[in-house]
Amino acid sequence: MLTDPDLVMSYRHDEADLVPYGTPSVVVRPRTTGQVSAVLRAASRHRVPVIPQGARSGLAGGANAIEGAIVLSLTAMNEIVDIDTENHIAVVQPGVVNAQLHRAVAEKGLYYPPDPGSWEQSTIGGNVSTDAGGMCCVKYGVTSEYVIGLEVVLASGEVLHCGRRTAKGVAGYDLTSLFVGSEGTLGVITEVTVRLRPAPEPALTLVAVFDTFAAAGAAVSGIVRSGLQPSMLEVIDRVTLSAIEAYRPMDLPTTAAALLIAAVDSGSRAPDDLARLAATCHEARAADVYVASDAAEADALLAARRLAHPALEQFAANLFPAGGGVMVDDVAVPRTRLVELIEGIERISTEHGMVVATVGHAGDGNLHPIIVIDRSDPVSIAQGQKVFDAIMSLGLSLGGTSTGEHGVGLLKRDWLAREIGPTGLKAHRSIKAALDPDNILNPGKIF
Amino acid sequence: MLTDPDLVMSYRHDEADLVPYGTPSVVVRPRTTGQVSAVLRAASRHRVPVIPQGARSGLAGGANAIEGAIVLSLTAMNEIVDIDTENHIAVVQPGVVNAQLHRAVAEKGLYYPPDPGSWEQSTIGGNVSTDAGGMCCVKYGVTSEYVIGLEVVLASGEVLHCGRRTAKGVAGYDLTSLFVGSEGTLGVITEVTVRLRPAPEPALTLVAVFDTFAAAGAAVSGIVRSGLQPSMLEVIDRVTLSAIEAYRPMDLPTTAAALLIAAVDSGSRAPDDLARLAATCHEARAADVYVASDAAEADALLAARRLAHPALEQFAANLFPAGGGVMVDDVAVPRTRLVELIEGIERISTEHGMVVATVGHAGDGNLHPIIVIDRSDPVSIAQGQKVFDAIMSLGLSLGGTSTGEHGVGLLKRDWLAREIGPTGLKAHRSIKAALDPDNILNPGKIF
Repeated sequence: MLTDPDLVMSYRHDEADLVPYGTPSVVVRPRTTGQVSAVLRAASRHRVPVIPQGARSGLAGGANAIEGAIVLSLTAMNEIVDIDTENHIAVVQPGVVNAQLHRAVAEKGLYYPPDPGSWEQSTIGGNVSTDAGGMCCVKYGVTSEYVIGLEVVLASGEVLHCGRRTAKGVAGYDLTSLFVGSEGTLGVITEVTVRLRPAPEPALTLVAVFDTFAAAGAAVSGIVRSGLQPSMLEVIDRVTLSAIEAYRPMDLPTTAAALLIAAVDSGSRAPDDLARLAATCHEARAADVYVASDAAEADALLAARRLAHPALEQFAANLFPAGGGVMVDDVAVPRTRLVELIEGIERISTEHGMVVATVGHAGDGNLHPIIVIDRSDPVSIAQGQKVFDAIMSLGLSLGGTSTGEHGVGLLKRDWLAREIGPTGLKAHRSIKAALDPDNILNPGKIF
Repeated sequence: MLTDPDLVMSYRHDEADLVPYGTPSVVVRPRTTGQVSAVLRAASRHRVPVIPQGARSGLAGGANAIEGAIVLSLTAMNEIVDIDTENHIAVVQPGVVNAQLHRAVAEKGLYYPPDPGSWEQSTIGGNVSTDAGGMCCVKYGVTSEYVIGLEVVLASGEVLHCGRRTAKGVAGYDLTSLFVGSEGTLGVITEVTVRLRPAPEPALTLVAVFDTFAAAGAAVSGIVRSGLQPSMLEVIDRVTLSAIEAYRPMDLPTTAAALLIAAVDSGSRAPDDLARLAATCHEARAADVYVASDAAEADALLAARRLAHPALEQFAANLFPAGGGVMVDDVAVPRTRLVELIEGIERISTEHGMVVATVGHAGDGNLHPIIVIDRSDPVSIAQGQKVFDAIMSLGLSLGGTSTGEHGVGLLKRDWLAREIGPTGLKAHRSIKAALDPDNILNPGKIF
């Protein structure tokens, strides 16, 4: 239990910028489910809000504390309980870091696909709470497709086991899926059972350089239509390329308007698939298409992609020394409407005179437009908010969703309400009230 | 609206044997969401139970009427609203028959995998309500992995839209997954958005004949451990083989203790995969292993597998002319414990002197032990129930679940309670009360 004000201060918020937070009265770092249960029983009795936290690497304020609350940090529950190599299942505590699980199962020839950008920091508990995505999703799907069972401590302190360890199972309501993505508002996850896949063979990676961002989007639509199943299909725009190159020089083609990075799992079909990917990029007028010469070059490209967020924070700090910051958006549209989204983002950024760097999981139709703002300038903040809202509005008008993988948190409550409407909100509120009648679990998040 | 007593009688129950049902006061067959909404508003006002029904091909009594209820038959809402070939999505009304969707998307080079045994009769609405499985699941997963959006009419008559049309989306609670598998107790599904896959190439099919059922189970465990990904892995035991051969002669090896049918999607890796499957079967002491000579032979094998249920009903009628019947069970265990399940079922059937035919999705660890009973003999029914309970108990003791794909309905309410415990039941009841406060939607089902 931490009560030292200096220590407590560091548990106030996640990585979302411009989202409110308060100072918790105490931080509790339980080591057992029983301790979590005791905290929730006490919190229920005294009606004190409880904010579950993982690594606080979230981007929507979902883990932000409110004044006087109990922060329940799950990072000390970080044991891999079981890796069942025969049934392809792992059981882990919520504080296990994503990359730690990834590596532990890889040693046994297995694969845990979800790989959010934060995978070296973020915890499985946080990944489950936000239904985190990543670069693998275009072929292998998001976190919810891997979680088959949970242990959850309810607001009352009761311990609920839901889901199964079998390949299939339909006994009762799918409570497991209800808790996945519920951002700590329905219960505190204390154990997670995930399914694993056999390890894929190393991927073959292709890079395509485009003179316009829209052309890169057209290539993605062409790949989707072709029925090809790349295991990765990422896009990086010019601003982001320059920011990454400045942050860690690695000879990226910074004059390109956009870069597509595509991979296919190796195997006998891979060279054909790669050739078809390359042809599709050429049809979309790629200026250059080349295949990574080896795994090291491919890994370097992925590492570059993963640096987008810190590189853009650095870029913002250089641009606005008084208080550069970034607003990270997360919008997903049907994949064939990607070009419209890209062109819209460019139009919006020009109209408002703001720098928007865009990077994302193009193969999923999921982009992260990152708005560069001067936090010391209220006008810049206001303009940033306008750009943010205009992009959200555009995404919904294209049949998209207001969050592809980051979650709602505090950042997108208004947009969720617009997306799901009053009947949807009412259903959310009634389920929340059913499982957390005193509204002590992460109150005010999502809706 | 049907009120003619003779017509109404035919809407009383699904295909589960020995499960209670009543006579509805009226059957309503709406054609629009607005009509469903009107029925639910009226039912709420008058507190009349509403029983949603599809094709009534379910096997757990989930669609059984209760005395005086309104049956809401969704079979007239049977339009395929949209097949989006570019984004690989279909939007359908709930009354669309599974095979009808399967064929409509196949014409466009796409694939809707879930293929329950009843696929020529059962509706997508029913499939979604039970989270139906099938033979494809070992590679392609169950219905819930394909449903990405729903239109649902709530008990109040309000129309809820949940989910999305994008590849990814985490906006709010995953209400879509909550409704999938909820067996009509939380809302009435009036439109379903599913994702589709590119059509796989025709499969290569292998048959392995075993002298003991346990050896077939051992082969399955070996295949699971090997990391091979068959697109089908079905088992049929001796009793079922004989019943199918008697029902529709096709030269099945009826002296075998068990038959495994395995398939791999064709493509350049398929011959290798098939050879590895064959080697694994030989290691498990298969008496014979052969590859289907062509698609026609493979299709005939699948057709035989699909006849298991009607063939066993016929078998029961021949064995007990006074009232032969079958109790169809549905148990799933971790796949490596399949041999223990098989040996246990054999032991239980011997101990109770009852015929149990077993068929199932071996690759998922999901078996359907089918207990043959004489419905005219209370002793036979009682013995059948004992066998049923002993198999359920065994399945749970092996770390399994009481239903792999058929659902709970009325048949397994007691077993669900044992499986999920009092905290699980309480969570179910609170969610049910949140969405259906007057308990008018399929009351008494599941829990």
